[in-house]
Amino acid sequence: MEKRLEVCLTPALLDLYAIEDSIVVVIDILRATSSIVYGIENGATAIIPVAQVEDCLNYSNHGYLLAAERNGEVVQGYDFGNSPFSYTKEKVGGKTVVLTTTNGTKALHLARARAHQVVIGSFLNLKSLCDWLKLQNKNVLLLCAGWKDNFNLEDTLFAGAVVAELRKEFTHFDDSSVAAEDLFQLAKNDLRAYINKSSHSHRLAALNIEEDVKFCLQLNICTAIPVLQGETLIALQS
Amino acid sequence: MEKRLEVCLTPALLDLYAIEDSIVVVIDILRATSSIVYGIENGATAIIPVAQVEDCLNYSNHGYLLAAERNGEVVQGYDFGNSPFSYTKEKVGGKTVVLTTTNGTKALHLARARAHQVVIGSFLNLKSLCDWLKLQNKNVLLLCAGWKDNFNLEDTLFAGAVVAELRKEFTHFDDSSVAAEDLFQLAKNDLRAYINKSSHSHRLAALNIEEDVKFCLQLNICTAIPVLQGETLIALQS
Repeated sequence: MEKRLEVCLTPALLDLYAIEDSIVVVIDILRATSSIVYGIENGATAIIPVAQVEDCLNYSNHGYLLAAERNGEVVQGYDFGNSPFSYTKEKVGGKTVVLTTTNGTKALHLARARAHQVVIGSFLNLKSLCDWLKLQNKNVLLLCAGWKDNFNLEDTLFAGAVVAELRKEFTHFDDSSVAAEDLFQLAKNDLRAYINKSSHSHRLAALNIEEDVKFCLQLNICTAIPVLQGETLIALQS
Repeated sequence: MEKRLEVCLTPALLDLYAIEDSIVVVIDILRATSSIVYGIENGATAIIPVAQVEDCLNYSNHGYLLAAERNGEVVQGYDFGNSPFSYTKEKVGGKTVVLTTTNGTKALHLARARAHQVVIGSFLNLKSLCDWLKLQNKNVLLLCAGWKDNFNLEDTLFAGAVVAELRKEFTHFDDSSVAAEDLFQLAKNDLRAYINKSSHSHRLAALNIEEDVKFCLQLNICTAIPVLQGETLIALQS
């Protein structure tokens, strides 16, 4: 049987892929899907991704933690921002978190509308995610959230890492998956240095989130796989 | 002054780029832009790219050469197909050619609507094109025609070749241009072998156009730079 492993480089290209029978892995390395994986790993009951800071307010009377940032600062009245360091056991254990993320939420909503199943990937849970994907008898689409609908390096590198892990399990690869894997092979010995070549790196430096970036590029410090149920991300029970 | 060199990986992403003050290089390596460069090099008066075989018929009473293929075969009643070997001096010198090309025509029409200027790139005229671009005081967008609105390897590799040539002349690069350049550096010693990794390679093999592919991957056998004037491609007078 043909098994497809494909990489959609931005949500703007998702319509080009048949995903009705696929598992879609949503990827937004800096920082949404890294924070989501870390939060679920640390016992958050659920994480609800929303697109706008204002959308968080719909959840303000539910007793949820509200996470929102503008220009790198926690929005006044919110519990914390988007740094993965806010998603520790102490802060999120047993809690539901509403997380603002533009690119990540868009990708999640688009995927949810059509995919068989939607899970969350990051370098933090790379091995665990790939081990699980190997056991599913499904096509897999790696969906890069990108930056404002365009290509970005960090999400593509992670997609390439997954392709490298899963290559033997699949029979069909699109051109994006070939490119992503080769870029990952180039970058893997020093992901941080490679991402410095990115146009984002200046933006990231301006946001003063260097520690967050380093954190998000760690491999396999988590085993949790967040899965989308309705609009809510919870831990996959494998 | 900031000078931008960017790579748009597919026409579906073109709206994300400000190109009003940019030169756009349209890239459809297999085979439209390679055949166009070769035809203009060989003295074709003009080349008119159209999207559909049926569109060619609008030009059937003008004394133009009509080029159309379906499934790798010349369409009955047409003068030739899309192979660059049809664009020799003997065949196209002094003639106007109407060329059917789906991906290339789409990219050209989208670019024309907004760009300062639209030119045609291929490995055949790489150096000549880059030398000319260096002399223009303009931002440059390299527009990959791709395959049915999605990413493809061969167009991205050519974009990367241009980035490698022009890196010193520009100050700002997007993430796609970084990725394209690195993929070209990986592939440059054997472009044909690299493109064999492509999902297209099976499609290409089925079309029996191996000789065309080899031809299209030759570097710098032409100096012509086709430029779009209205709907027609002619030789740039530098």
